Amino acid sequence: MTTTCDLAVPPGLKGLVVADTAVGDVRGSEGFYHYREHSALDLVERCSLEDVWHLLLTGALPTPDEARAFAEELAPLRVLDDATLDLVDREASTGTPAAPLAQLRTVLSHLATGSPPTYAAPPTVVRAEALRLAAATPTILAALHRRGAGLPAVDPDPTLSAAADWLWMITGERPAPEVERAINRYLVATVDHGFNNSTFAARVVASSGADVGSALCAALGAFSGPLHGGAPDRALEALDQIGSIDRAPGWVRERVAAGDRIMGFGHAVYTTHDPRAEMLKAEAQRLGGPLVELAVAVEQVVEDTLAELKPGRELYANVEYYAGVVMERCGIPRSMFTPTFAVSRVVGWTAHILEQAATTKIYRPAARYVGPPVVR
Amino acid sequence: MTTTCDLAVPPGLKGLVVADTAVGDVRGSEGFYHYREHSALDLVERCSLEDVWHLLLTGALPTPDEARAFAEELAPLRVLDDATLDLVDREASTGTPAAPLAQLRTVLSHLATGSPPTYAAPPTVVRAEALRLAAATPTILAALHRRGAGLPAVDPDPTLSAAADWLWMITGERPAPEVERAINRYLVATVDHGFNNSTFAARVVASSGADVGSALCAALGAFSGPLHGGAPDRALEALDQIGSIDRAPGWVRERVAAGDRIMGFGHAVYTTHDPRAEMLKAEAQRLGGPLVELAVAVEQVVEDTLAELKPGRELYANVEYYAGVVMERCGIPRSMFTPTFAVSRVVGWTAHILEQAATTKIYRPAARYVGPPVVR
Repeated sequence: MTTTCDLAVPPGLKGLVVADTAVGDVRGSEGFYHYREHSALDLVERCSLEDVWHLLLTGALPTPDEARAFAEELAPLRVLDDATLDLVDREASTGTPAAPLAQLRTVLSHLATGSPPTYAAPPTVVRAEALRLAAATPTILAALHRRGAGLPAVDPDPTLSAAADWLWMITGERPAPEVERAINRYLVATVDHGFNNSTFAARVVASSGADVGSALCAALGAFSGPLHGGAPDRALEALDQIGSIDRAPGWVRERVAAGDRIMGFGHAVYTTHDPRAEMLKAEAQRLGGPLVELAVAVEQVVEDTLAELKPGRELYANVEYYAGVVMERCGIPRSMFTPTFAVSRVVGWTAHILEQAATTKIYRPAARYVGPPVVR
Repeated sequence: MTTTCDLAVPPGLKGLVVADTAVGDVRGSEGFYHYREHSALDLVERCSLEDVWHLLLTGALPTPDEARAFAEELAPLRVLDDATLDLVDREASTGTPAAPLAQLRTVLSHLATGSPPTYAAPPTVVRAEALRLAAATPTILAALHRRGAGLPAVDPDPTLSAAADWLWMITGERPAPEVERAINRYLVATVDHGFNNSTFAARVVASSGADVGSALCAALGAFSGPLHGGAPDRALEALDQIGSIDRAPGWVRERVAAGDRIMGFGHAVYTTHDPRAEMLKAEAQRLGGPLVELAVAVEQVVEDTLAELKPGRELYANVEYYAGVVMERCGIPRSMFTPTFAVSRVVGWTAHILEQAATTKIYRPAARYVGPPVVR
């Protein structure tokens, strides 16, 4: 039996509680978010991406033995077989400008062909599939980048942390400890963030009982949308345009007068400071350098100017703003900024897919017909 | 500003009105559905799939001149280039058993690499992209089938209707008029059907401003989920198991006693007869033959037995039941039953993606955290 409810729901379901979750939560008005029962920023201080991955998959941070076993489980899954590398090669030459996320979607879709539906599959099978596809993601993205640039792919190194391995596979160089630390902190801080659009898309698809790869492809598509956020390169482009601190006030006023959004400021959920931005700002300042100095100064100008021009809007620097600064400072090419975000978020997506797969309630809403009267 | 609403929403948003649409609607309790302002079953009587495609894209059925122009616009888009055919070849050998929908997702994802985001793109650009990908879909699916079976691909024939061309590309034979008619009717009847799971998934992804291909990949993933429905082959498998009419009562009682769902009966939205099933039943009876006679007799037994064993549940034959019978009777291989459904539904998905792209309200709901208390 279906009954049609006609509650006034907010457009885009904004802020409407549509499900229960034990993966984590965002408390927008408190500037606080967590994974399972742990403050995400506490985890940033003391965990690797792999530790948090284990937490999201199993519900608990790993003991040292569990961490070693998990690393051993992940290592072979990071390695691509020849057929996949061949597809990567072909996709790397598709798309101008570089479109690593769309190419990743194609390769993951290929890897997921023949995967079992999550519906009625044993949880261990679903978990194995989630781990397989998420573990392959950084290797695919790095290979797409290097092959697209005409460079040889760099094989993953099982002795490295996920953060160091990601930098190694992109650049072909061992990262300095402070660079590995900064990127690990970025990755841990961006694993999950509530029912954002890509996470919700993954859950909607998973709710049909489809396979993990189908849900991941949906998430990747949503992630590529300009309204999704998660494009640290756009915030950095603004810094490029400003160039020097004395030009910042004029630049901000021009943008606001033109009705443009200032990239890197404001957030859909946080009504106070974005805690991820504050953590990354401190990390950027640890790394130091002229770009960081410019970014910190521009942040102040933008916040002051926006407070004057848009009083009451409370637009603060968001995660994109300092993520771009940190990644640039760590030598990640700009075309790989958003893919770096995908490297962490794929862990969160798979946690949500596993949770969704454990329920069997398919998302199937209704709509109000507003077209011309129906002829009967 | 975000406020979190805490209305009691139904699980899976079932029946909750989440948006306005002018694409069409399903009136479950009336056994009625429509595209734009036209009864879908009226359109079945007098329109080709292309006419309805035009209706959904432009809001109006085509004049004869418009129909010719639309056919000319579609013809070159049905033809695959060599690089795509090469990818089809490679994908056709992936996945056991045959997984044409997952393979289609990979090929469409590839074709969509570098596509412009719908956000801020001119409507003509978005429409062209929707037409390009939807028009290529039947050709890709047919080629995947034939290459997977070791047969040469059959090029589309621009002189044929979409229904006849689909049969031609799968079988390599010109369909008899009554077969073309039956498949056209099936395709027209299944173009769209409210905010079902795959359509909603497409709209969620499109709401991020992502490209048409990203939204289509999400829809295809959802479509493959066992809870989505749309698998006419499963209903036919039940007829195979029953084999003869005298075995039907015992078979149904066994299934119900085991707690199994009877495939092909019952629907999430219709609380009365599924109007598509009734139309397809008449079409099957027009085609005639032993399978059709068995299906009609078994339908009666199942409905009578379910009415006795599950009083008040009102479980009638749904679209899948007679769709499988019609497709089998029309010589479509079973592995291509669900892909045939995709051939029509891709038209509906693109209509919804275009409508969603014209709004800029991203789907971004919230969830209730129900895990262990958070440590702060």
